[in-house]
Amino acid sequence: MPMDVDLGLENTYIKHTKLTYIDGELGVLRYRGYDINDVVNNLSFMETAYLMLYGRIPDSKELKLFSSYIGDGKLPERIFSMIDTFPEGDPLSMASSVFAALAIDNNMKWSIDENKRNAGRIIGLSFNVFANIYLHIKGKKLYNIDLGDPVSGFLRVTNNMDPKNVKAFEAAMILYMDHEIPASTTAALVTASTLSDMLSSLSSAMNALKGPLHGGAAENAFLEFLDIGSPENVKPWFNEHIIKNRERLIGFGHRVYKTYDPRIKKFRELSMSLCDEKNRIILDTALELERVALDYFREKKIYPNTDFFSGLLFNELGFEHWFFTSLFALSRVTGILAHIIEYNENEQRLIRPRAIYNGDGERFIKR
Amino acid sequence: MPMDVDLGLENTYIKHTKLTYIDGELGVLRYRGYDINDVVNNLSFMETAYLMLYGRIPDSKELKLFSSYIGDGKLPERIFSMIDTFPEGDPLSMASSVFAALAIDNNMKWSIDENKRNAGRIIGLSFNVFANIYLHIKGKKLYNIDLGDPVSGFLRVTNNMDPKNVKAFEAAMILYMDHEIPASTTAALVTASTLSDMLSSLSSAMNALKGPLHGGAAENAFLEFLDIGSPENVKPWFNEHIIKNRERLIGFGHRVYKTYDPRIKKFRELSMSLCDEKNRIILDTALELERVALDYFREKKIYPNTDFFSGLLFNELGFEHWFFTSLFALSRVTGILAHIIEYNENEQRLIRPRAIYNGDGERFIKR
Repeated sequence: MPMDVDLGLENTYIKHTKLTYIDGELGVLRYRGYDINDVVNNLSFMETAYLMLYGRIPDSKELKLFSSYIGDGKLPERIFSMIDTFPEGDPLSMASSVFAALAIDNNMKWSIDENKRNAGRIIGLSFNVFANIYLHIKGKKLYNIDLGDPVSGFLRVTNNMDPKNVKAFEAAMILYMDHEIPASTTAALVTASTLSDMLSSLSSAMNALKGPLHGGAAENAFLEFLDIGSPENVKPWFNEHIIKNRERLIGFGHRVYKTYDPRIKKFRELSMSLCDEKNRIILDTALELERVALDYFREKKIYPNTDFFSGLLFNELGFEHWFFTSLFALSRVTGILAHIIEYNENEQRLIRPRAIYNGDGERFIKR
Repeated sequence: MPMDVDLGLENTYIKHTKLTYIDGELGVLRYRGYDINDVVNNLSFMETAYLMLYGRIPDSKELKLFSSYIGDGKLPERIFSMIDTFPEGDPLSMASSVFAALAIDNNMKWSIDENKRNAGRIIGLSFNVFANIYLHIKGKKLYNIDLGDPVSGFLRVTNNMDPKNVKAFEAAMILYMDHEIPASTTAALVTASTLSDMLSSLSSAMNALKGPLHGGAAENAFLEFLDIGSPENVKPWFNEHIIKNRERLIGFGHRVYKTYDPRIKKFRELSMSLCDEKNRIILDTALELERVALDYFREKKIYPNTDFFSGLLFNELGFEHWFFTSLFALSRVTGILAHIIEYNENEQRLIRPRAIYNGDGERFIKR
């Protein structure tokens, strides 16, 4: 046993997985063996969620059944009353609080026969949770959205159901669905390893996701574009902040990818195709910043990450920047559930790491 | 880098610690270098909490200041309204939900200057959180308890403030305050490693603690005693369930201790001294079960753990069995906060372990 701390568990393997394959050097991401671009160009959100949970693309009968599981994700009235008590603040904490509250009288048990059905229902619930958090913050009436197609049902909260928008939002929900085991998924895994339930595990994931070192990059990259203001300002801003003051450029660099993140192509394509006159200056600023930064960072192999582009898209879809991390969290729910189910079905073991004592030797209380 | 999964992270060190020293072979547990029995016999709950956070026993001036931090832990009215919406169910999920809801508009930031003050306030909050969950489940009016002495303030919810009871409850709160990094503390660490806040980290800890492989053993051991019913029934029950059916004896055995858990002496002493006529038969049943089981397991070095005795004590203090895990969680809040502060002040790094891909090779969608 190595007698030293592995800080951040950077060199520790916590589980096996058949869900997501990442090659950071080549810029490859696959869900269940399928390239992410193949998936996002050919499958619906529902088909991709099924693929992640079951390991194969569903036929129409299987899809219909899975859709009925998702349709079971209705919030009880008590949750609306609860959301009404929330003050202004972090929507991720609201989501964590709601998932934990749904776990109070949860009767879904761990069971190989029931896990995927329950996951479907919880995916449906999560669309309702985030939709109603959005409605609450906007001061609107809460209601259970139409889960027949949860993606378009969700988009109704922004009154923005143009089919082009639904398609783009669906793509974002697929692109962010899973990315192996970041801190949020790890928090869920630790929770599920005690055989605590899926809803409680999701609550833990939301608590981790709200941390500034984890979620939040898409929002901050977008605020960076607003701060710069226009394509002409990019060069002087970049010289001042990045070159002179050596600040970190938000939306650039990734622990895993040493080349273009394979999800970026689609995110860029979508945000360019959806962009209207109002948002043109933000997109042009971002594209100019990408050009300048790529030029500067090329030798260091630092590339833009998805957060650089997803905020542009979410903004074009009518969402405010304070909700970007929530949209990321919503799409990640499926991946988190797939990981904890995979762990508890195949490798279940209570996660209980160790600490190395480096404190005082024995001492005695003198009174 | 070892190329295999360390299931349960059993052989992985995640941090250093100066908080708790455990020697499982010799049955030693020390807080900050002081033997647990030295601590529980000489310090108050407040002094022990101070010791854990600051590393030394406070003088009267320091204690007064720390007490004022704890006194700041008042719940806002909105939390009472929120608790009112909770259905019957798991009090740990209620606690998780409340901690996450308190984090929505939390303005406590990570800061070496403020961390301990904030921890004091959150310890106060946690006494109020669990007291009000208890009151809610019992159908009583919610209120902010007197935090001048949180231990006796808390015990008022059972209308059971005999000084002997307060003393015993205080001892239990000290004995369970910390035990290195079980799954609940690990869930909190993963959350805090993203620089998410202390309240969100506690929410994650509660989500993990509710799992049947983690908290809950004290309650289940107590239910086992009730199930056996009387000292005369112990032998036949033991022969049937443990010897013949090879069931697991709840409250016996520990991952770390290969001898008597050092906290047991005090727990046994307290539950024997507080026992009245009404509870005598439960205590006698437990003691007889301990005798029979010790005899049977002696060669395997399996000993009773604290959960075997703490439920007896909590019952004598007037708490129902469904609240035992909550009392354990309440006492553990201080240890969890001390660990996440220690981590973020000394070794802060985003916890992001890895997974080994063992799924399909590349495949292509055919449509």
